[in-house]
Amino acid sequence: MPSGEDDLFARYFKPLAMTPGALGLIDDAAILQAGGDDIVVTTDAVVAGVHFLPDDPPDTVARKALRVNLSDLAAKGAEPAGFVLTLALREVSESWLAPFAHALGEDATVFGCPLLGGDTVSTPGPAMISITALGRVPPGTMVRRSTARAGDVVMVSGTIGDATLGLAILKGEEGGQGDGAAAHDAMVERYRVPQPRVALARAIRDHASAAMDVSDGLMGDLAKLCSASGVSAVVEATAIPMSAAARTWLSRDPALLARLVSGGDDYEILCAVPENRRAAFAIAARAAGVPVSAIGRIIEANHAPKLVDAGNREIPLERRSYSHF
Amino acid sequence: MPSGEDDLFARYFKPLAMTPGALGLIDDAAILQAGGDDIVVTTDAVVAGVHFLPDDPPDTVARKALRVNLSDLAAKGAEPAGFVLTLALREVSESWLAPFAHALGEDATVFGCPLLGGDTVSTPGPAMISITALGRVPPGTMVRRSTARAGDVVMVSGTIGDATLGLAILKGEEGGQGDGAAAHDAMVERYRVPQPRVALARAIRDHASAAMDVSDGLMGDLAKLCSASGVSAVVEATAIPMSAAARTWLSRDPALLARLVSGGDDYEILCAVPENRRAAFAIAARAAGVPVSAIGRIIEANHAPKLVDAGNREIPLERRSYSHF
Repeated sequence: MPSGEDDLFARYFKPLAMTPGALGLIDDAAILQAGGDDIVVTTDAVVAGVHFLPDDPPDTVARKALRVNLSDLAAKGAEPAGFVLTLALREVSESWLAPFAHALGEDATVFGCPLLGGDTVSTPGPAMISITALGRVPPGTMVRRSTARAGDVVMVSGTIGDATLGLAILKGEEGGQGDGAAAHDAMVERYRVPQPRVALARAIRDHASAAMDVSDGLMGDLAKLCSASGVSAVVEATAIPMSAAARTWLSRDPALLARLVSGGDDYEILCAVPENRRAAFAIAARAAGVPVSAIGRIIEANHAPKLVDAGNREIPLERRSYSHF
Repeated sequence: MPSGEDDLFARYFKPLAMTPGALGLIDDAAILQAGGDDIVVTTDAVVAGVHFLPDDPPDTVARKALRVNLSDLAAKGAEPAGFVLTLALREVSESWLAPFAHALGEDATVFGCPLLGGDTVSTPGPAMISITALGRVPPGTMVRRSTARAGDVVMVSGTIGDATLGLAILKGEEGGQGDGAAAHDAMVERYRVPQPRVALARAIRDHASAAMDVSDGLMGDLAKLCSASGVSAVVEATAIPMSAAARTWLSRDPALLARLVSGGDDYEILCAVPENRRAAFAIAARAAGVPVSAIGRIIEANHAPKLVDAGNREIPLERRSYSHF
């Protein structure tokens, strides 16, 4: 990394460089001792006004920026090894950078993912945080998108749709008037601060035939996994795990279903698990403290995955995921 | 990586994902088989209007974005292993993206650094290209900034100051009226398209006690290297390698010297070489086809490095490097 910003970056972020290989952020590069592992590399950027709201608190922005990357690593079965950070900012404001760095440091510690290096650049545009995260897996064990097989069970962690509702609340949309402040806060929190399923990485690696994280909408992401694997899937709407709050919204407005299964920001793990691994995967997930649900089946077909109701009737979806362009 | 931009990214950049571990850019992450090597990680972003001019041709922007990172790897003694790319763009324009991707692919091939993955995000702000590059070194051999010792020779590759003059030309400044178009073009090219000293990586690893690349100005970067190493240095102005064109400008305006040694974008390698390795380093550099020059000496002192003239008188420097904030 270059720049007169060296000092600025080190001033705020040195406490996050907990690993010797980060060299205290005073060098041009960091060292990652790979040992015998494969290194898993993923990169994700968040932009103010696109991936987070410009007035979101800096601590939640920091957590989201790192966690969307940790979510990708977990879905690949990888343990976090470290990350690098590029911060594009209009101006350096102590009141923004200090809580940003503090929260990022907390997450780096909690998830065992030290900062390895980074860069601050000035931009006249909106703030942008670009993170590249590195993880480790034993050689040859990274879980791919493209290896799902017909007959596999489609499984997903946690609950789907809360982040979409959280964003709706932040945008002032109607829908959840009777839910109480606590339910609203929980959904807003799901939008602002994803819970990456780092604890599930080992179970994914050991049991899933294919996996990815749900970042752009459950049905859209499943379509990508199926397309990469040359298969299709059928998902039972009633089996999709939802929070009590989401069920309340849905009971008032059943048409909301299509939006919840195609909205973004869930950051749960979607995977295909061979039938004969299903029980072992469930046990491993429980041991990791992560709820998982079977929501459908991988099938041999070349149409997009179908969402069906309790009577096995297809539920039409206008769009399946969020796209920036 | 996430997003409805998957397809867009893969459409333009799939040809650059030459390594099997990139998984054709259709997965959420890439696999880097580390073997027994240490992985060297560096990250650098370039922003329109800050690091390149908004109307710079897209092919030169692509090359600069990758090459500034390759320059960091080379200075650490690392061989390129791959890179990930985050493109923040206002809009997707075929006429910009196609030549950008084509040039990036050429450089990825020439420098043996395949694309491993990436992400396109929309931004209402200026274009920004953030790259994280990964390199390899045998375990424990990455060359640091912090390990220069008193008595070492200060050496630098190539020539210093051409990029600063190239930027001056692009900004319409006076100074080189009599140089002819070819000399002007060469200096503009130095600003737009750095020549990363990838070929010098092995020689640096084998012989340098400390190294970094010159991205923000020779004297400022030397000050960083010295500060990290707890030493100082004396540099002889007449020993600093300069192109014939830069010497011509300098002969007309001797005060320009301070600007050339503190301007950015040289992307040469600055290193400290123990006296007893000097000859071996010179031979290795010649074998690699990279000119290197001895410009001074590391000394034990706690002042900033000094620039001196032929009479050993200190040449005062108002500033030593470029800073974005």
